[in-house]
Amino acid sequence: MPYVNIKITREGATSAQKAQLIQGVTKMLQDILGKNPQTTVVVIEEVETDNWGIGGESITERRKRERK
Amino acid sequence: MPYVNIKITREGATSAQKAQLIQGVTKMLQDILGKNPQTTVVVIEEVETDNWGIGGESITERRKRERK
Amino acid sequence: MPYVNIKITREGATSAQKAQLIQGVTKMLQDILGKNPQTTVVVIEEVETDNWGIGGESITERRKRERK
Amino acid sequence: MPYVNIKITREGATSAQKAQLIQGVTKMLQDILGKNPQTTVVVIEEVETDNWGIGGESITERRKRERK
Amino acid sequence: MPYVNIKITREGATSAQKAQLIQGVTKMLQDILGKNPQTTVVVIEEVETDNWGIGGESITERRKRERK
Amino acid sequence: MPYVNIKITREGATSAQKAQLIQGVTKMLQDILGKNPQTTVVVIEEVETDNWGIGGESITERRKRERK
Repeated sequence: MPYVNIKITREGATSAQKAQLIQGVTKMLQDILGKNPQTTVVVIEEVETDNWGIGGESITERRKRERK
Repeated sequence: MPYVNIKITREGATSAQKAQLIQGVTKMLQDILGKNPQTTVVVIEEVETDNWGIGGESITERRKRERK
Repeated sequence: MPYVNIKITREGATSAQKAQLIQGVTKMLQDILGKNPQTTVVVIEEVETDNWGIGGESITERRKRERK
Repeated sequence: MPYVNIKITREGATSAQKAQLIQGVTKMLQDILGKNPQTTVVVIEEVETDNWGIGGESITERRKRERK
Repeated sequence: MPYVNIKITREGATSAQKAQLIQGVTKMLQDILGKNPQTTVVVIEEVETDNWGIGGESITERRKRERK
Repeated sequence: MPYVNIKITREGATSAQKAQLIQGVTKMLQDILGKNPQTTVVVIEEVETDNWGIGGESITERRKRERK
């Protein structure tokens, strides 16, 4: 019965990729810890790049620098 | 001063239902644990069905199967 | 299939009170939103009073002031 | 390597304000706890006023009362 | 730069299992979404069985029923 | 009425440091966003180094490497 929360920036993850992630993480918890997949919950949250910071700057700013 | 985070799939919960939930959970924490309702915070997050998985599949896929 | 996270300060909530909370919140989500209780997950987290702040001060400090 | 999650109501915080918040919190964790800013993650989540409750009522309702 | 939070009940997961989980989830996010593993954060939280509810009852109660 | 959750590894943060963090973050939200400090909640969670991963390895392993 694990609960997994995955936060990523909203940069175009597709439904297929998210389905793959849900399936993969659920299976991994079964394989490594023996957790019942039927009650494993995975919630993916997509966050605007303005709202995500690392190293003291937002991803929006970081992406701009990287593009230069 | 409890903090309650309720995550549900985004499938049409109304403002009235959410107000009822906020009121009900706040009262429950007062009744069961004696918590001060004035500082009880309730945050409801609505998550796309593509982004919620249980049993290794997304709710989008599950709803499709159920409809058949 | 909701997921509910309840954070409270660690100040002696009993197993019976926590069981009541789990049962009550699960039922409330069924009554108000029609959610299936079988897949409703409730996780209670108890946080040291040193680690919880409101109004800019920790609950440890607030409890000291209240006792005076 | 701290992880900071800031939840606020969605009431018009600007990109500049959010950038300031990311920078400020990252620096504060470095100053007070000596944490490496390069791996400090800050995630800001903006929540609809219907979905945020305090004192048993939603912020939407509270704002209406305050305006009167 | 994803952030992953895994909550499980505290029922004896070993350091080796947790290390495997951290490695596996980080790799999965790289493989499926192309995320940089260097800034992927994984936080595992272990929750007492009294504090985890599913189907309206705590895991403590569920484990008792299962043992009978 | 913001809610701030700060997760750090459990590596000896003192009560005084945590009080400073609570005060600082609350003031920052008031200064930058005009948020009312009386209803700003800050919750600090300290996580075992075994349970925190970055770059695909746990902090326990990383600290060992660094010490060499």
